[in-house]
Amino acid sequence: MQQMMDKLKGVTRKVRPLGLARYENSAEHSWQIAMLAAALVSYAEATVDINRVIGMLLVHDIGEIDTGDTMVFVEGGWEERKAAELAAVKRIFGLLPESRGIAFLELWQEFEDASTPESLFAHAVDRAMPVLLNLSNEGQSWRENGISYERVVGRIAPEIEAGCPALWKYLEGRLEEVRKKGWFDAVKCD
Amino acid sequence: MQQMMDKLKGVTRKVRPLGLARYENSAEHSWQIAMLAAALVSYAEATVDINRVIGMLLVHDIGEIDTGDTMVFVEGGWEERKAAELAAVKRIFGLLPESRGIAFLELWQEFEDASTPESLFAHAVDRAMPVLLNLSNEGQSWRENGISYERVVGRIAPEIEAGCPALWKYLEGRLEEVRKKGWFDAVKCD
Repeated sequence: MQQMMDKLKGVTRKVRPLGLARYENSAEHSWQIAMLAAALVSYAEATVDINRVIGMLLVHDIGEIDTGDTMVFVEGGWEERKAAELAAVKRIFGLLPESRGIAFLELWQEFEDASTPESLFAHAVDRAMPVLLNLSNEGQSWRENGISYERVVGRIAPEIEAGCPALWKYLEGRLEEVRKKGWFDAVKCD
Repeated sequence: MQQMMDKLKGVTRKVRPLGLARYENSAEHSWQIAMLAAALVSYAEATVDINRVIGMLLVHDIGEIDTGDTMVFVEGGWEERKAAELAAVKRIFGLLPESRGIAFLELWQEFEDASTPESLFAHAVDRAMPVLLNLSNEGQSWRENGISYERVVGRIAPEIEAGCPALWKYLEGRLEEVRKKGWFDAVKCD
């Protein structure tokens, strides 16, 4: 089981950790968003059980062990990827003692369903993290992947606003600021 | 604050993730031991609040942002390092809203004090993780750093046995097995 989980350290994302040349991986990302959620819990849209939020964030990317990470801006194929991730987490959590496997799967499913206050807040934090890194990284992953300002805002605003409105208000201002600085100027309209 | 936390991704440890050439970093390690703790909670020596265990494991290495990681087998200088880590976490958690900063510092301190059932279990899991990786990695970090069988067992047995006796029983058997296979043969006595 631990050999399987270790593979999440090898699933790379599109953002680079600040000051490092390599890409971020999904294991360290999962740690970071758990910490961010704990730090921001008082700003959640509703009162949330932070322990369940952290649990969801720690397991939510484990399906990527089989499927790899897909950038949030990729369109199409979403349902197929989610079905593949579900098959993956069933396989991987199935390696655990049964009650633990079920508990992890329930957390994973709650995150996917995105209907409880906890899962909405967890989604807001998950969406916000790469934005915060990009804001400290001169928009590195947006630039490298040709993502426009409109595409960033369109994709992340609804989820962040739903789960953590104060965080969206902050990010909205920061995004507008860097747009004016020209961070998105080289990106073609899309 | 998130810029500061991001630096934990750049703190390297001595173990390499399975199948990867690079060294593990303390952020992904923190994620992995939180998952391991959740998976093994029914084997803890005492009944524990798993949420507090996870909280401790997520924050316990944050002081390394200022101090770097030190291999558990390094002798001497322990107290100085711990004092430096305390100064570091006070500085870093001080960047958070006050109540959050205090909550993180309390978790960090509970782990350091190692006197509650939760912190004893957390220590057991933290100690066991690199052993599990080494057992899947032909003893990579032991070999690279000239760590003998006696030194591994002497350093980890008390803590793992105190917090999670069943885990120690399992590891004791596995370590004896790989010792017989000669994994430690090239290491000089120390």
